[in-house]
Amino acid sequence: MTILTNVMSEMSTEVVAEATEGAVALFTANNIWMMLATALVFIMHLGFAGVEAGFGQSKNTVNILFKNTITPIIGLLTYYICGFNLMYPGFAEGDAGIFGFAGPFLDAGDGASIDYAGGGYTYWTDFLFQGMFAATAATIVSGAIAERVKVSAYMIFTVIYVGLVYPWLGSWKWGAGWLDMMGFYDFAGSTLVHSVGGWGALAGIIIIGPRLGKYVDGKVIDKPGASVPLAVIGVFLLWLGWFGFNGGSVLSADPDLTSYVLVTTCLAACTGGLFGFFTAKIVFKRMDLGMVLNGILAGLVGITAGADVVSVPSALIIGAVAGVLVVLSAITLDKFKLDDVVGAVSVHLTCGIWGTLAVGIFGIGEFSFMTQLIGVLAYGAVAFPIAFILFYILKLTIGVRVSEQHETEGLDSHEHGIRGYTIIYDE
Amino acid sequence: MTILTNVMSEMSTEVVAEATEGAVALFTANNIWMMLATALVFIMHLGFAGVEAGFGQSKNTVNILFKNTITPIIGLLTYYICGFNLMYPGFAEGDAGIFGFAGPFLDAGDGASIDYAGGGYTYWTDFLFQGMFAATAATIVSGAIAERVKVSAYMIFTVIYVGLVYPWLGSWKWGAGWLDMMGFYDFAGSTLVHSVGGWGALAGIIIIGPRLGKYVDGKVIDKPGASVPLAVIGVFLLWLGWFGFNGGSVLSADPDLTSYVLVTTCLAACTGGLFGFFTAKIVFKRMDLGMVLNGILAGLVGITAGADVVSVPSALIIGAVAGVLVVLSAITLDKFKLDDVVGAVSVHLTCGIWGTLAVGIFGIGEFSFMTQLIGVLAYGAVAFPIAFILFYILKLTIGVRVSEQHETEGLDSHEHGIRGYTIIYDE
Amino acid sequence: MTILTNVMSEMSTEVVAEATEGAVALFTANNIWMMLATALVFIMHLGFAGVEAGFGQSKNTVNILFKNTITPIIGLLTYYICGFNLMYPGFAEGDAGIFGFAGPFLDAGDGASIDYAGGGYTYWTDFLFQGMFAATAATIVSGAIAERVKVSAYMIFTVIYVGLVYPWLGSWKWGAGWLDMMGFYDFAGSTLVHSVGGWGALAGIIIIGPRLGKYVDGKVIDKPGASVPLAVIGVFLLWLGWFGFNGGSVLSADPDLTSYVLVTTCLAACTGGLFGFFTAKIVFKRMDLGMVLNGILAGLVGITAGADVVSVPSALIIGAVAGVLVVLSAITLDKFKLDDVVGAVSVHLTCGIWGTLAVGIFGIGEFSFMTQLIGVLAYGAVAFPIAFILFYILKLTIGVRVSEQHETEGLDSHEHGIRGYTIIYDE
Repeated sequence: MTILTNVMSEMSTEVVAEATEGAVALFTANNIWMMLATALVFIMHLGFAGVEAGFGQSKNTVNILFKNTITPIIGLLTYYICGFNLMYPGFAEGDAGIFGFAGPFLDAGDGASIDYAGGGYTYWTDFLFQGMFAATAATIVSGAIAERVKVSAYMIFTVIYVGLVYPWLGSWKWGAGWLDMMGFYDFAGSTLVHSVGGWGALAGIIIIGPRLGKYVDGKVIDKPGASVPLAVIGVFLLWLGWFGFNGGSVLSADPDLTSYVLVTTCLAACTGGLFGFFTAKIVFKRMDLGMVLNGILAGLVGITAGADVVSVPSALIIGAVAGVLVVLSAITLDKFKLDDVVGAVSVHLTCGIWGTLAVGIFGIGEFSFMTQLIGVLAYGAVAFPIAFILFYILKLTIGVRVSEQHETEGLDSHEHGIRGYTIIYDE
Repeated sequence: MTILTNVMSEMSTEVVAEATEGAVALFTANNIWMMLATALVFIMHLGFAGVEAGFGQSKNTVNILFKNTITPIIGLLTYYICGFNLMYPGFAEGDAGIFGFAGPFLDAGDGASIDYAGGGYTYWTDFLFQGMFAATAATIVSGAIAERVKVSAYMIFTVIYVGLVYPWLGSWKWGAGWLDMMGFYDFAGSTLVHSVGGWGALAGIIIIGPRLGKYVDGKVIDKPGASVPLAVIGVFLLWLGWFGFNGGSVLSADPDLTSYVLVTTCLAACTGGLFGFFTAKIVFKRMDLGMVLNGILAGLVGITAGADVVSVPSALIIGAVAGVLVVLSAITLDKFKLDDVVGAVSVHLTCGIWGTLAVGIFGIGEFSFMTQLIGVLAYGAVAFPIAFILFYILKLTIGVRVSEQHETEGLDSHEHGIRGYTIIYDE
Repeated sequence: MTILTNVMSEMSTEVVAEATEGAVALFTANNIWMMLATALVFIMHLGFAGVEAGFGQSKNTVNILFKNTITPIIGLLTYYICGFNLMYPGFAEGDAGIFGFAGPFLDAGDGASIDYAGGGYTYWTDFLFQGMFAATAATIVSGAIAERVKVSAYMIFTVIYVGLVYPWLGSWKWGAGWLDMMGFYDFAGSTLVHSVGGWGALAGIIIIGPRLGKYVDGKVIDKPGASVPLAVIGVFLLWLGWFGFNGGSVLSADPDLTSYVLVTTCLAACTGGLFGFFTAKIVFKRMDLGMVLNGILAGLVGITAGADVVSVPSALIIGAVAGVLVVLSAITLDKFKLDDVVGAVSVHLTCGIWGTLAVGIFGIGEFSFMTQLIGVLAYGAVAFPIAFILFYILKLTIGVRVSEQHETEGLDSHEHGIRGYTIIYDE
């Protein structure tokens, strides 16, 4: 497992000698694109932090940021320990089945050579790009259950969900598993990433219950977020990150496919935001910035499954429908007293499902609505119960919820010893 | 118009077979640069949001952010509907004239092949890169007229100005129109983007009038911005975005030109900031962070017209002059009771004009001061009256200004139902 | 020194004709990577601004941001005037010695050709990438001495430290100087950048003294930072920037080396954050977000010297040790009443030293612990006294510290005339 980079460097020199210069240049260009896509997906974690700390109440800001900072750390480390080799067990095609594991830790083998991944990127890029995706699933959960979940419970959940559940379920499609064999399609993870996170979020808010004072006498009580600018920063960074999330999922820098994917991605974000705005204007009679922002995210999640296989007009429709769905979904959740602080279930689960099914409707090529539906149901049938059981066990053992006093007075001063904002001008 | 990406993918395979591997690799590298430049220009919209929400008052933060979030959405969608084909009508050289339109929507044709744009990028990259530029013109207006403009009026203005006016005027130079034929030069848009936005901003603040209580008894009353950190985030993100704005305007990843352009761009930003500081120190007798920030932006706008055709010392001078001009311009506007919340007219119009003329002074090669001046005047003679008439019609019809009560109490709680910041620690 | 870009462009055409297309494509790809690494290092300056303004008190926010905005301006301009040619005097190998200077300003020569820097990047990219590094050294100082240093003193210190001291000391290794000859290794600057900055910070806090009321009756009094979200934004942007700081230090886009470096970098950041968390949990009995954040930075600084020559497990260990060290170092400094506002000395000096020594322990290849130690000591023996003397002279002349009144009431309203945050809802 120990990698001699000096040796690697010599190998690389040999590769250059063997291959034509043009092939090396193309490999280098592809790998640059994938590394930068990795950097862009990384910055999505700051995007999530911004959205959650922006929409969460100021008394819990530090707590939210603590979770969002620790999540990519847990995500990358568990992906190093086992996730990567659970998700990509490397079985021969046609043989992947429902579970595989290639052993713990990393082993580059000849992964830095031009042959790895068809010249699209190196083994190391592969690990880091996929590792950045991994933590996303837990971050989605974090936003929904914020402001009352115990940090310790969240951290244990995250270790298991990101380290084991996400990569195992991901292997069904991206690891050449049984759903891949069936023809199920999910380009960049409307289901594999967003719905899996969304199912975890739904299970979490059911088990943990709504925040104190959120639903009183049949009314939904507004809990104003600490900082709208922070939420806006978050959404723009997430949109930016999606350049890498979807653009990198081409798995090379193929000029037409990558640039086409960026166009469908950005236009779906636009119609998502626009229809989030229209829907909220009709329903709430106000210019609701929150719903424009969530509409943008909804459009992005919606287009993620089929960004490379739908036409531009289809992308516009997919985004628009996602923008409507995200508002209706949020209203529906509140009807069931399911308290989702940032609208994570509506954005990632509802629109993740929609986007995956949309491939069966709009996808140009060999796509089947039924196969897409089977995929959606299969993920739901496994991810939701696992998350539910995980949270339930945590509830029975260490507890999943902070004390009433801590929740009322704010988690920051009690659990973290500092406050999110201290704006004073004279001592 | 429907694009079969599967077909595209096969095409791409053929292209690979035909061209040499080296040519494919170069096309891929060029296209990567242009896609990332697109991402960097995209993040400028967050930069503008930061500057405007940071310098605007806290009671209007949500309103400002709402406009800044909806602007790139409108910009990209109108560019999809008609802007792209208005700006690049694709006439044969020498025949472009003053107006052309290649029909609505997108049609890639063979735009993904290595022949499109001389191997610099694909059709899709072209659309998205230029589309990201488009929305900038409206965002500039947004900052100047903030805190009292009606959102509906702003949105209608933006649809027309970004969807029709900006691309039509842009075609005069970048669409191979009459100014291009004349030898007018504007590398990345000191005039085409920044001045066009600046003329709109000037028209807007004239028609809409200053904020209540801004000019009282001959005095200029300071309206403290909500968050200086947010403004700093905005300016740094704009500077970062300029790596793509100017770097991408090379329209390929040509190593010497792109890297040279980044050097002139960054150094002009530095002298802009430094001379903004010096000028403000002399005039206002304080270390004025706002003028350092606007000085940086001034330097960036100033160098944009000639970043590729001036020497490094000339770039330093262009930035320095812009840094002085932006302060003097801001003072002058206040003398005329023209209330520009973020200094958009001074940054984008004053320094956009300066930068365009500077090409005639410092440009190495076939550049004429008179031709540059004709270009500047031509854009002003058309953009300003159109913007003026647009705002005037809006004033006569739906109105351009919120009620006195809303303006005094803040737009956020009245029009958007939430506040920008809610920092409370106990319930 | 004047550069005719038109001529450059023609040169570039000739180069294309001469070299194979594959070589041009590889050069282009390499240069893209380096330009984007430059952009990423640039955004680190916003990262530093976020950390410092977030951890600093709100009454000094504008002052902190002023320093952080002016620092990259000074850094790039002094690097243009003399720094670049001090750091890379261009002597023949074996002949660099301890001081060299290639004359002021820039001169590309044939620096845009494919021969410059082994085809890794152009002269212009070289200047801008290294220039972005330069300002970092001063920014590190800025964070430590914040909230009581005089801006004028800081600016003079920065001009000299960044313009002369940093590049001169850097030439010892990266300019092929005497330490390079000895076999001293510092991949991306644990010592050359971070420790040099850290020594300056340590000298600064000794000379300037702690903030009023920081150490009272043997107790360390907490001074709550203005905005934890801002600090989190800062740390994530710094982590993002490290993709370019370390990834770009490969000095080409070599696929295996660059991607390997990103993996070691990110994993060390993870263990740094995790062990910062554990250590603070044990010592302070709370979930200390500040120490997670500083742990991440500690891991990043620690891995910087050897990111390309240590195994992945070694990277994890290096990061973990850095995460422990940063907490212990912060406690130790407080024992000596050394008041470091953001923990800059602990992050950059302590972990910079650790990372440099770690190459001697974990480096795969010809690395010697003793040589690494000599390098560490040599930099300390020169950087610290110079910084100390500089600050001491400033203290004796213009003074290094603001008045007691200004410090107590806040620097913003006194020196800058505005406040960092103005959150009011009705006029």
